[in-house]
Amino acid sequence: MEHGTRRNSYPSDPLFRDRWSPRAMTGEPVSRDDLMALFEAAHWAPSCFNEQPWRFLYALRETESWDLFHSFLKGNNRVWAKGAGALVVILSRKSFSHNGKPSKTHSFDTGAAWGSLCLQGTLLGLTVHGMAGFDHGMARTALEVPEDFDLEAMAAVGYPGSPDLLPENLRSREFPSPRKPLSELAAEAGTDDRGIFL
Amino acid sequence: MEHGTRRNSYPSDPLFRDRWSPRAMTGEPVSRDDLMALFEAAHWAPSCFNEQPWRFLYALRETESWDLFHSFLKGNNRVWAKGAGALVVILSRKSFSHNGKPSKTHSFDTGAAWGSLCLQGTLLGLTVHGMAGFDHGMARTALEVPEDFDLEAMAAVGYPGSPDLLPENLRSREFPSPRKPLSELAAEAGTDDRGIFL
Repeated sequence: MEHGTRRNSYPSDPLFRDRWSPRAMTGEPVSRDDLMALFEAAHWAPSCFNEQPWRFLYALRETESWDLFHSFLKGNNRVWAKGAGALVVILSRKSFSHNGKPSKTHSFDTGAAWGSLCLQGTLLGLTVHGMAGFDHGMARTALEVPEDFDLEAMAAVGYPGSPDLLPENLRSREFPSPRKPLSELAAEAGTDDRGIFL
Repeated sequence: MEHGTRRNSYPSDPLFRDRWSPRAMTGEPVSRDDLMALFEAAHWAPSCFNEQPWRFLYALRETESWDLFHSFLKGNNRVWAKGAGALVVILSRKSFSHNGKPSKTHSFDTGAAWGSLCLQGTLLGLTVHGMAGFDHGMARTALEVPEDFDLEAMAAVGYPGSPDLLPENLRSREFPSPRKPLSELAAEAGTDDRGIFL
């Protein structure tokens, strides 16, 4: 997998580099306990005022809500996510519970929890793939999401399958995506730091 | 530390539970290489269209930019963060680079990178503490942040120190914060799921 070659330029733990977002999943169910372990990892994330704005609504394969969750998905996501064992809607609370004021960091904080969820998936040998391509309005209505909550993303969770399970247009993209060089993402202030804003 | 007792309710990796956000830091410098390992971990995070919207600007202790970064901080953050070895401003790109359209997930995606940064810090024995309490306008102007980029948060990175280094009002809060029960954060759709929206 030449496309999938990822190399560390600094010694970060292999866990981070080894996590990626495959689409091919076997169609096996994911157990409620495994899914809860992902949410458990997520819920230890840091958040402003320890608000813990993240919320997770899920549907397990072969249960009543599955078709509903699947119907939220758009385009290619609807195709490949058929192989998932669980579908998750990730939400965030927009206001602080201690004073009702708007939070500036509810999406950012919920992203941190999402990151942990993905990493715990890797540790359990599960595939986790985030999706922005879904019908937010339909999901909000069907799930009766209150106004004070945002829909951040959906995720498919399942067991890794062969790329042959995918249609050709997706099969050719089934490798770990590359990353920009660190010099385009991080810089010491004042020392030629404009490169990160290009 | 009775306050600091955190227990797993499902078997997620101890890494997630063991990460917390201490304020007491020794004042030792953090090496550029260690800091880059944190950004390296961060940059493997998933993002919509692999946009990688996260950006990191940093100042190392005992360098020219340190006082400037420290001056952005507000209130208590200005007090305890004196012990940090590096200060980081976390930014995100608001539009997609492939078509210029606004991204709905730039903060969420950048949060995922931030979560990895924190976890890599724990793995290296470093303290990482995120902060929303800083002067966003001042930081934007001083760092000449382009309009298409948001300031998401700041972070202090350093070596864990004794709580005795902190003033009394902060010393009493120097323990890992608790979390809501998972039943208030995650639910199967359709099965008594309103508890996560309370």
